[in-house]
Amino acid sequence: MNYPSKILEKAVEEISQLPGIGKRTALRLALHLLDVPKTQADNLSKSIIQLVHEIKHCKKCNNLSDTEICTICANPYRNEKIICVVEDLRDVMAIESTQQYNGKYHVLGGRISPMEGVSVTDLCINPLVERVKEQNIDEIIFALSATIEGDTTMFYLYKVLNDTQITFTTIARGIGVGDELEYTDELTLIRSLQNRVPYDQGHK
Amino acid sequence: MNYPSKILEKAVEEISQLPGIGKRTALRLALHLLDVPKTQADNLSKSIIQLVHEIKHCKKCNNLSDTEICTICANPYRNEKIICVVEDLRDVMAIESTQQYNGKYHVLGGRISPMEGVSVTDLCINPLVERVKEQNIDEIIFALSATIEGDTTMFYLYKVLNDTQITFTTIARGIGVGDELEYTDELTLIRSLQNRVPYDQGHK
Repeated sequence: MNYPSKILEKAVEEISQLPGIGKRTALRLALHLLDVPKTQADNLSKSIIQLVHEIKHCKKCNNLSDTEICTICANPYRNEKIICVVEDLRDVMAIESTQQYNGKYHVLGGRISPMEGVSVTDLCINPLVERVKEQNIDEIIFALSATIEGDTTMFYLYKVLNDTQITFTTIARGIGVGDELEYTDELTLIRSLQNRVPYDQGHK
Repeated sequence: MNYPSKILEKAVEEISQLPGIGKRTALRLALHLLDVPKTQADNLSKSIIQLVHEIKHCKKCNNLSDTEICTICANPYRNEKIICVVEDLRDVMAIESTQQYNGKYHVLGGRISPMEGVSVTDLCINPLVERVKEQNIDEIIFALSATIEGDTTMFYLYKVLNDTQITFTTIARGIGVGDELEYTDELTLIRSLQNRVPYDQGHK
């Protein structure tokens, strides 16, 4: 493309580095920023800088946090004997939004995936091992993705942590509430049959 | 959504102000910026600031430019007796990429559209009138969108500029009515430049 301005070209170049944003979209976004009040672009720019320079990883659970210890880890009313192990903070946000979990978390920062070049050392595993050694943990819930990589990660963690007196559980895999049986894939259906639970009238 | 960090929340808030980017995409982009080297986020932030604070509008043609006068207006090898009137710089970029036009441009910055609250005073029309008065212009090519608004703008400009000895043309309507100039393939665009026809008020 023939940009009329080097500054514009550079901005488009930088914006199009973001995932899922091509040159054309980047140009549209750049022109949008030129259309709106300058404070909006200033705020955007400032918050990006602040994001990458000021945000921290919680020293306990590795979740993103404004402080050394995140609000969940710092909360004394949460059960610290249960740790839910997730891949990234979006999983924490999803579970938190249910308002049904009162334990703590541990954020791995991904899953073991040789195909994507993610090995054990790339994940935040040692702090979890330390935490389990130091604290008295009753239960570890694996809330990892139901893929080969997720299963591999789960198995690795189970092996690493297994010398302790902990109950290991994984979140139930089955047919989503409201989903139709006929459209469910076979693997999910097999899992939900294998992991069937006693019928409880009052239970939803 | 329950953000684990105020800084992250603010960044997501700012990013999701951009058109076509929702909260979820904004979160994905923010997490991406945390994943890549910090220099990338720094460069993005810097180029946004530079974009909105340093970019200029060419004093002659109103195109975006790094300098007071844009490279096209400053080019002595281009025919300054022909002015191609377009709506915005993406149209200039589209026509430039055909490498078939050797005249100058005038960027209106939009089109007359009462529905969108864009009136004559919102567009860069007076500088065009001045330019036509001061310079000896042979031809004005209207390369506006083939919509009611485009036609209205064209008719208005024709009326305003009509007291002079200028040939008015419009690019050939090879471009589908309602299609955007910037998404047109180059061949169609070349055709429509070559086959430009004299502007006739009654002609649709």
